[in-house]
Amino acid sequence: MNKLRHDVLKSAPFDTARLDALLEDEGIDILIATSKHNVQYLLGGYRFFFFEHMDATGVSRYLPVVVYQKGRPDNTAYIGSELEDYERQLGKFWPRVIETAPSTSAGAIRRAVEHIRKLPGPVGKVGVEASFLPWDAAKVLQDGLGHAQIVDACFPLERLRACKTKAELTLLREASERVVASMLAVFDGCAPGQTKNERVDRLRREEIGRGLTFEYCLITAGTNLNRAPSDQRLAAGDILSLDSGGNYRGYLGDLCRMGILGEPDAELEDLLGAVEEIQQRARRPIRRGAAGAEIFAAAQELVDASPHRGCLDFTAHGMGLISHEAPRLISNESYEGYDATRPLEAGMVISIETTLRHPKRGFIKLEDTVAVAEGGCEGLGDQGRGWNRAR
Amino acid sequence: MNKLRHDVLKSAPFDTARLDALLEDEGIDILIATSKHNVQYLLGGYRFFFFEHMDATGVSRYLPVVVYQKGRPDNTAYIGSELEDYERQLGKFWPRVIETAPSTSAGAIRRAVEHIRKLPGPVGKVGVEASFLPWDAAKVLQDGLGHAQIVDACFPLERLRACKTKAELTLLREASERVVASMLAVFDGCAPGQTKNERVDRLRREEIGRGLTFEYCLITAGTNLNRAPSDQRLAAGDILSLDSGGNYRGYLGDLCRMGILGEPDAELEDLLGAVEEIQQRARRPIRRGAAGAEIFAAAQELVDASPHRGCLDFTAHGMGLISHEAPRLISNESYEGYDATRPLEAGMVISIETTLRHPKRGFIKLEDTVAVAEGGCEGLGDQGRGWNRAR
Repeated sequence: MNKLRHDVLKSAPFDTARLDALLEDEGIDILIATSKHNVQYLLGGYRFFFFEHMDATGVSRYLPVVVYQKGRPDNTAYIGSELEDYERQLGKFWPRVIETAPSTSAGAIRRAVEHIRKLPGPVGKVGVEASFLPWDAAKVLQDGLGHAQIVDACFPLERLRACKTKAELTLLREASERVVASMLAVFDGCAPGQTKNERVDRLRREEIGRGLTFEYCLITAGTNLNRAPSDQRLAAGDILSLDSGGNYRGYLGDLCRMGILGEPDAELEDLLGAVEEIQQRARRPIRRGAAGAEIFAAAQELVDASPHRGCLDFTAHGMGLISHEAPRLISNESYEGYDATRPLEAGMVISIETTLRHPKRGFIKLEDTVAVAEGGCEGLGDQGRGWNRAR
Repeated sequence: MNKLRHDVLKSAPFDTARLDALLEDEGIDILIATSKHNVQYLLGGYRFFFFEHMDATGVSRYLPVVVYQKGRPDNTAYIGSELEDYERQLGKFWPRVIETAPSTSAGAIRRAVEHIRKLPGPVGKVGVEASFLPWDAAKVLQDGLGHAQIVDACFPLERLRACKTKAELTLLREASERVVASMLAVFDGCAPGQTKNERVDRLRREEIGRGLTFEYCLITAGTNLNRAPSDQRLAAGDILSLDSGGNYRGYLGDLCRMGILGEPDAELEDLLGAVEEIQQRARRPIRRGAAGAEIFAAAQELVDASPHRGCLDFTAHGMGLISHEAPRLISNESYEGYDATRPLEAGMVISIETTLRHPKRGFIKLEDTVAVAEGGCEGLGDQGRGWNRAR
């Protein structure tokens, strides 16, 4: 019987040995993932289309659940909504156990508890996503597994996702290039009298037209440093910043580019040049084996030497299925700085951002995405880094 | 000082007396809303654009929080992310207290606890959204208000939203009409050889092009009863069902319409006619003062008399900011049937759905949205109810 089961088992679409080791480090026996991004990762790219955007329904909400037992990927279960039976029929799932439940958070976790109770082996420590497990579901879990200790498993899940595969890097490159191409189209069509809201709406359509899910756009125009979309109107000579996130099959492109309604003067060229110089300097140390803090050190040296240091900021953070994931580069005492002193690994993806809030000329920023490689780094979506003119 | 504060206070954009009475019924002193839809409602339509789609970021997630003290709307606080300071500058908020916090669920609730501790009066019972309060945030809340009892406040929040204002009805009509118009454009452009995925992508663009946020589309083609988008190809003569949700400024349009690649034969005309007859019959009892169960009784009489009763289903549910909200019409013992025996109120909005899963002819369904009025009901988005031909 066991053999038969193995014969029909599709293999897990992620590195189960790595996950097992990460869970072992934390003493976790059972992992329960309930965030859209981690469920997508553990299911090999699957996201349920119906609740892609909204998850509230009825008196509760949709809660997708993946249960993973350390060392036993064949015991993995996925609990989805009743509508996901259509997806099961289409062969979308790799785990052997697929359960569908009414769309309530407590109901979904109740099914997970039933599955866990049937598993062989100890259930001493159960790892959950503390920010993505609703309170009512957590109570059902604690009641159902009274003897088990429930702990946060954000860390092992994030480390599991830290190094991107070639296929993931391709998706991140696509996302980044499509976001930048969308921005260039928006800059191209800028004219005095348009509002920031209109430009953001245009960007939304450009991104969607390129197969992305539009996430957000921060936008500034002229010398105003407020980055929220609004009815502020563009004027001749205004500079514009577009900082937008759009995802491609769940993978995020997050970049910032500059535009202008006219021609930049020498000072504007200098200011964007200074930002670009920091961006390029920050890339220099990035390679497999370098410590995360080296990126900050390289950039900070230029920031400190700049006449604009009072209004200049540099930051860097990992990204992938979500913004601000591993590697964690900020050098401080918390988990935020975990990778500051550890060697970067090939396949990690880093967002680098230099921001100049100029009191007289406005908001000037570049944000780029780079992938860590063997002897250096590779930019994803490096187009359009200068002043993009409206035509 | 107190007077000065009142002078600058913007008034609450919802019926605070009604909310106070609902909280009084449950014995709740403090209400904490953390779902996007309830935060939008309590903030008068505001939704933070940056986390409109994704809410995961860093080691946690974005969690918007509204704190409301029973009987004291002037003590309302909103806790948002640091980026929402841009929105505060633009005057988007009515509460006097606006706090911004780093985007973690625990951090946001920590600010809420600080606010609650400063409030005058008792904090005996605190109502939360049990399915929308993350586990880590719930722990911070319980630790911070150790003496308080924490209970689910889904019910009073849902009842607060049950009767829509004129402005809300306008948004729901817009949402419904735009969803239907998008569907009609998709049917119009159908041709053999296209896939269901392509048609859903087209619908997405049609909805977005009409200013909607696309939520989902269930789709069938031919005699296949599977409703998930897939690479199934359309063929000449196929019937199609499109069941899509799209929201307009947060308010949901959720309708189902039928199309065909060719001309319907007499049997298909009869089948859709039978579905339409049930839909129309279900509307008859709907008016202010009727009991919710009357809708089911009216429809069920026709279902029971139908030769297709074995594959015919009727259901009805309230809708608004989310699908399946109050009024709760299904007649059973749970909260689900709360409105079955209670009088419907003017401004309630009801989705009615008749589904025929025909084993030989395929999936045939109509879903409509109606608003309860004084002496009857009013359809929102009633266009396109017959067989919509591909051209």
